[in-house]
Amino acid sequence: MEHFLDKAKSASRVLATLSGSERNRILREMAEALRANTMNIIEANALDMRKGSEEKLAASLMERLMLDEKRIESMAVAIEEIAALKDPIGKVLEGWVTEVGLKIEKVSIPIGVIGIIYESRPNVTSDTAALCFKSSNGCVLKGGKEAEASNGIIADVLQQVLLRNNLPKELIALLPDATREGVAKLIKMDQYVDLIVPRGGEALIRFVSQNSSVPVVKHDKGQCHLYIDKDAKIQDALRIAVNAKVQRPSACNSIETLLVDSTIALEVLPLIKEVFDRENTRLKGCEQTREIISVEKASEEDFDTEYLANILNLRVVDGVDGAISHIVRFGSSHSESIITENITTAEKFMNSIDASTLYVNASTRFTDGGMFGFGAEVGISTSKLHARGPMGIEGLTTYKYKVYGKGQIR
Amino acid sequence: MEHFLDKAKSASRVLATLSGSERNRILREMAEALRANTMNIIEANALDMRKGSEEKLAASLMERLMLDEKRIESMAVAIEEIAALKDPIGKVLEGWVTEVGLKIEKVSIPIGVIGIIYESRPNVTSDTAALCFKSSNGCVLKGGKEAEASNGIIADVLQQVLLRNNLPKELIALLPDATREGVAKLIKMDQYVDLIVPRGGEALIRFVSQNSSVPVVKHDKGQCHLYIDKDAKIQDALRIAVNAKVQRPSACNSIETLLVDSTIALEVLPLIKEVFDRENTRLKGCEQTREIISVEKASEEDFDTEYLANILNLRVVDGVDGAISHIVRFGSSHSESIITENITTAEKFMNSIDASTLYVNASTRFTDGGMFGFGAEVGISTSKLHARGPMGIEGLTTYKYKVYGKGQIR
Repeated sequence: MEHFLDKAKSASRVLATLSGSERNRILREMAEALRANTMNIIEANALDMRKGSEEKLAASLMERLMLDEKRIESMAVAIEEIAALKDPIGKVLEGWVTEVGLKIEKVSIPIGVIGIIYESRPNVTSDTAALCFKSSNGCVLKGGKEAEASNGIIADVLQQVLLRNNLPKELIALLPDATREGVAKLIKMDQYVDLIVPRGGEALIRFVSQNSSVPVVKHDKGQCHLYIDKDAKIQDALRIAVNAKVQRPSACNSIETLLVDSTIALEVLPLIKEVFDRENTRLKGCEQTREIISVEKASEEDFDTEYLANILNLRVVDGVDGAISHIVRFGSSHSESIITENITTAEKFMNSIDASTLYVNASTRFTDGGMFGFGAEVGISTSKLHARGPMGIEGLTTYKYKVYGKGQIR
Repeated sequence: MEHFLDKAKSASRVLATLSGSERNRILREMAEALRANTMNIIEANALDMRKGSEEKLAASLMERLMLDEKRIESMAVAIEEIAALKDPIGKVLEGWVTEVGLKIEKVSIPIGVIGIIYESRPNVTSDTAALCFKSSNGCVLKGGKEAEASNGIIADVLQQVLLRNNLPKELIALLPDATREGVAKLIKMDQYVDLIVPRGGEALIRFVSQNSSVPVVKHDKGQCHLYIDKDAKIQDALRIAVNAKVQRPSACNSIETLLVDSTIALEVLPLIKEVFDRENTRLKGCEQTREIISVEKASEEDFDTEYLANILNLRVVDGVDGAISHIVRFGSSHSESIITENITTAEKFMNSIDASTLYVNASTRFTDGGMFGFGAEVGISTSKLHARGPMGIEGLTTYKYKVYGKGQIR
């Protein structure tokens, strides 16, 4: 493992010698290579699918695992879109002249070698490899066991393009030991790996955060809330609530709990029940909710659960302060929204809650690199440092200071 | 410990309710309180000094430990200067409107609770507490055992000011268990502590980086180099080399090794010997150096040693590529400088080396928050993420996105 990572580290230094246009040309070659290998990729994917059905993987996982011509074409297009992004490297982020006349430039540079741990969807392999290559980083990828053959061939196709361009194939490497022990070793190798990005189940993320000596930007759970204030436009609130829950319940930026101001509960809860019944949403409610509408009982544990399914908790709270208390207790610092026309109430909500993204009068579903206009997304960070919330390709860069003098001493 | 940190975390939330001018007024009160307690502080410091001399602490440590009226006055002035800094919280770092008309603001916010581990100098206690308070962060301080009484009374004086202002004293807390075991516990408490800043010996920093589940910004060793290129102005080079080594050898931004281009070695090395002999610098050299001037032999280990003393390694290298290879192998990514009039050589040096700060024609001693114009310095980060190089008070902030909609759904 150490030998392998040492090679990945050395390989990453080679990238500094490539210009942006060279990197983009190679990325476009990678997209073409994926297209040219469509049939081989589908064959390898069939092995994973067969194993998956033998091992009785859940239908939703099988659906995410499956590759067909259309999906491989989207993977190729995604790489071309990444090639078209503005170069994130070499940007002068700030610049100034000091009192003694030193000219200082703060310039964006690659991070080095990035370890990425993810699950099921094989397109993450090509997306992530392309994002890292675009930003001049080496990457060590650890995909899910269920997608082993698919990830293997995708990485192989990309590596062939590297070799054809006289670049070391270790720039895009699959972790050789893809077991939990392999991951345990990887996250201790801070002399070779500069950043670990774990995306996946809570247990994996907890394990990585607790044990990594490499800095971690995690992509963890989204326990998101929507609060309907007494000063809300009720029709907007209902529309937004439905969108935030139903449009894609498996996304981390979907809500799990809807909070309703007690002063409007009697009026609004029946409307809520009506719109969500229409969406076949399973509703659970607190005691006060159940005095007004007939829904299942929500337990304390329910308020702490990321359903990732079409299930919604309802809770009556005492105004914005009640909403804030609930969210401080149960929120996961991901995305929180308030529906209100009152500017003071909105600002109180947005300033009191420590989450990556706070909304007024909009759906939490917008917490997304694409929706933010970042062009491509590494993921949604639930870490507090380095990158927070939607993480664009800038999240794969750090900086150095370049200082220009003319003989200054201290 | 957990109960204590839970209180620190809750206390940190109270800070959000204070305006910038309230924080500044309280900081100025803290400065006054230090002045008013000068005699008590000197008395407590005398206990540390007595223990230090019983335990035969090194003279340099004793010198750093000592507090007198003048030093306490500087501590008070430092707090007043921090009060005078621009508020780092609530700054709109970026802002834009998305395609669907959402107005997004990226706003600076406090990190939360910051654990700071440091040694000897008691003024770090008040400096750091003030920087954290200014940036609305709670702090948990763990100073050196040798400064226990001094740090204790300084923290106590600051806490009295908090209490007088109806603020929880846990906003500025000393770690109750200041042993290695206490530190080991602290760095695993990621539910309460958001950032650990270790400043101190290599062993401590290694221990913290390897074991912390809390993100770490480390302030580690500075293995810095100066390279004299064949196209250098030799008189500038000599002046800068002396400054970078001699002005304050114990600082992390001082150089340990001087690299000389082989094509000018015969001419320059005798001059180097002359200027450094005048400064009583102990010189060690590589084989090629010793063929030209008479100095001690430098071992491989010497090239890897941060002397923190008036000792300098000399090495002859083959041009800028030789200098880069040496620095890639031995550098600690802190500060590296090239002396040259050639712009292509300078850019090659600055672009090829991954260090926080790269210089052309200036002393490495400028890697410093004050010299960069940051006003106050948390330290000099040798981490790659979050904060790199001189770390101003902005290093104690993170951000959130505030998104303003008018009913948008996805």
